[in-house]
Amino acid sequence: MANTKAYAATAPDSGLAPHGIDRRELRADDVAIEIDYCGVCHTDIHFAQNDWGITKYPLVPGHEIVGRVTAVGDQVKGYSVGDRVGVGCMVDSCRECEACKDGLEQYCLQGMTPTYNGEDRHDGSITFGGYSEKVVVSEHFVVSIPEKLEMAHAAPLLCAGITTYSPLRHYGVKPGHRVGVIGMGGLGHMGVKFARALGAEVTIFTRSESKVAEAKHQGAHHVIVSTDEQQMKDAAESFDFMLDTVPVQHDLNPYLNCLKYDGTHILVGLLEPVDPAVNAGALVGKRRVLAGSLIGGMPETQEMLDFCAEHDVRCDIEMLDMQHINEAYEKVKKGEVKYRYVIDMDSLKQAG
Amino acid sequence: MANTKAYAATAPDSGLAPHGIDRRELRADDVAIEIDYCGVCHTDIHFAQNDWGITKYPLVPGHEIVGRVTAVGDQVKGYSVGDRVGVGCMVDSCRECEACKDGLEQYCLQGMTPTYNGEDRHDGSITFGGYSEKVVVSEHFVVSIPEKLEMAHAAPLLCAGITTYSPLRHYGVKPGHRVGVIGMGGLGHMGVKFARALGAEVTIFTRSESKVAEAKHQGAHHVIVSTDEQQMKDAAESFDFMLDTVPVQHDLNPYLNCLKYDGTHILVGLLEPVDPAVNAGALVGKRRVLAGSLIGGMPETQEMLDFCAEHDVRCDIEMLDMQHINEAYEKVKKGEVKYRYVIDMDSLKQAG
Repeated sequence: MANTKAYAATAPDSGLAPHGIDRRELRADDVAIEIDYCGVCHTDIHFAQNDWGITKYPLVPGHEIVGRVTAVGDQVKGYSVGDRVGVGCMVDSCRECEACKDGLEQYCLQGMTPTYNGEDRHDGSITFGGYSEKVVVSEHFVVSIPEKLEMAHAAPLLCAGITTYSPLRHYGVKPGHRVGVIGMGGLGHMGVKFARALGAEVTIFTRSESKVAEAKHQGAHHVIVSTDEQQMKDAAESFDFMLDTVPVQHDLNPYLNCLKYDGTHILVGLLEPVDPAVNAGALVGKRRVLAGSLIGGMPETQEMLDFCAEHDVRCDIEMLDMQHINEAYEKVKKGEVKYRYVIDMDSLKQAG
Repeated sequence: MANTKAYAATAPDSGLAPHGIDRRELRADDVAIEIDYCGVCHTDIHFAQNDWGITKYPLVPGHEIVGRVTAVGDQVKGYSVGDRVGVGCMVDSCRECEACKDGLEQYCLQGMTPTYNGEDRHDGSITFGGYSEKVVVSEHFVVSIPEKLEMAHAAPLLCAGITTYSPLRHYGVKPGHRVGVIGMGGLGHMGVKFARALGAEVTIFTRSESKVAEAKHQGAHHVIVSTDEQQMKDAAESFDFMLDTVPVQHDLNPYLNCLKYDGTHILVGLLEPVDPAVNAGALVGKRRVLAGSLIGGMPETQEMLDFCAEHDVRCDIEMLDMQHINEAYEKVKKGEVKYRYVIDMDSLKQAG
């Protein structure tokens, strides 16, 4: 009999349904966590549907996990029963390579172990994510949720938050910089909040005039309608950074032209070939940079949470019962969520 | 009657032929230079043939100019008659914008004035390049050729040299770094020399097994045949930088995969759309960077020349008489020059 209630997809078209899983006995460095909330990331949907052809079923998604510690292994030093904690996109890495030693476990040379659909480095079992009552994770991959943060609002910080915070910090965004944010979904709206909190002047690029009011409401100092040629022309060579959160193919060239010389276009959402093609002349002629960034390392994830507490940055969320996850997926696909669904895990625990 | 002998193209298919031009009277900040040598850059050919559709005929190419000062304007402070000097790809810029003030005149916000086919900022005349007896240039765009450098070997440093030196310096290449150089022409062979002189471990990527010996002769510590899948596989995630000097479309993805996390692929030769498309996942998944770089600013160009004198870096050249320029262009197009043609301007001066 499985020891943990969860929701799983069992085939590309199955949708998600109740599914029992077994969480392991605590290893010496493990923390057991009762999950309070779990955010819904678009990546969850890609995996549930096997969009990338690498899903191992049954799949329990969820990598924006917050909850409370219920037990700790013998050698755990950083956490005690009752602590408010979080788990993001990774639950393990080799811990010995240059990247791991630099606190950049997401770039582990051996490959990090993702929170779901990964392979446990010790017993080879497939990892299950946060759409479940509880989870057991090595303390190295657990972060502390500051008291000032509300738990439900903190959940999406573990993926949408760190994914946008990490590159802004890595590239040193600061007062005086002009930052453009492309895409106004879960990642984009966090990018705006972080860039603002870091002191930058923030512009949202949106394809639709109808989203201008919402973009300003999100805290953007300026809004540019990217389909308006004159607005794009006026913005030429005026940005230090573009934070591009768009997860589908799109033309980067109009945005590259908006960068100053030495400006940087940071991709955090796109994993496909860049089509239409990037104009190399736009990079060479102004020493511009096209960069990518993947989530963030564990030290930086903790730093991000502390930054959110200090600067009152929180994700905008809509609460969701586990039982409504399939409808929620449809809405995420249509871009109808503002800006992140968070599953209240009580709904799962109290189900019959 | 024109005051200066030169060679010019008068139409896309004209080839180059003798053509008289007028050099201006000295302005207060001008230096008059008798040209001793001028390098032949592939860009000269593109302009002569109007490959980019922006050529204004007659066109006098040449932006790798070295010679001696014959006169100076009233306010010139840095140069005296007899000084050994050089002129590269630029002869003017706005001098007031952020880029100009940073000594990055090549990224002038108003656009720099190229040495040929440009428009003089004062009188609107079209600039003529170094395939001529003499040139008149504002001292700000003149550099000093250190005594230790042979003049003929120094000429190509003004374009091929600075184009490869600038990004290696900008990105801080140093001992311990592994640098790959892609393309083994005028730019590539200088890239190898600079990367070595900066203390890096240098690998040349060549498409042909037949060029391995020559690549080692050029000073590369290692050579990888890029068409050999096993060699490319073995090189995965092992480079800090790629210096990509290839001026025609090529697939960047195999090289991106050779970069470590945080590695940087620097384009200095390509101005076309990047086709085949760059795989965004290769950037995002390892925080890699695709960057571009254009020649170098004036302070950096002087620094590069001084660096060459100190580290005994010189361009490999083949000497050429002005009268043989059209045959030389054919050889450059076929990649048959090792590694840069330099025109001995005595051949022009002594012609009838």
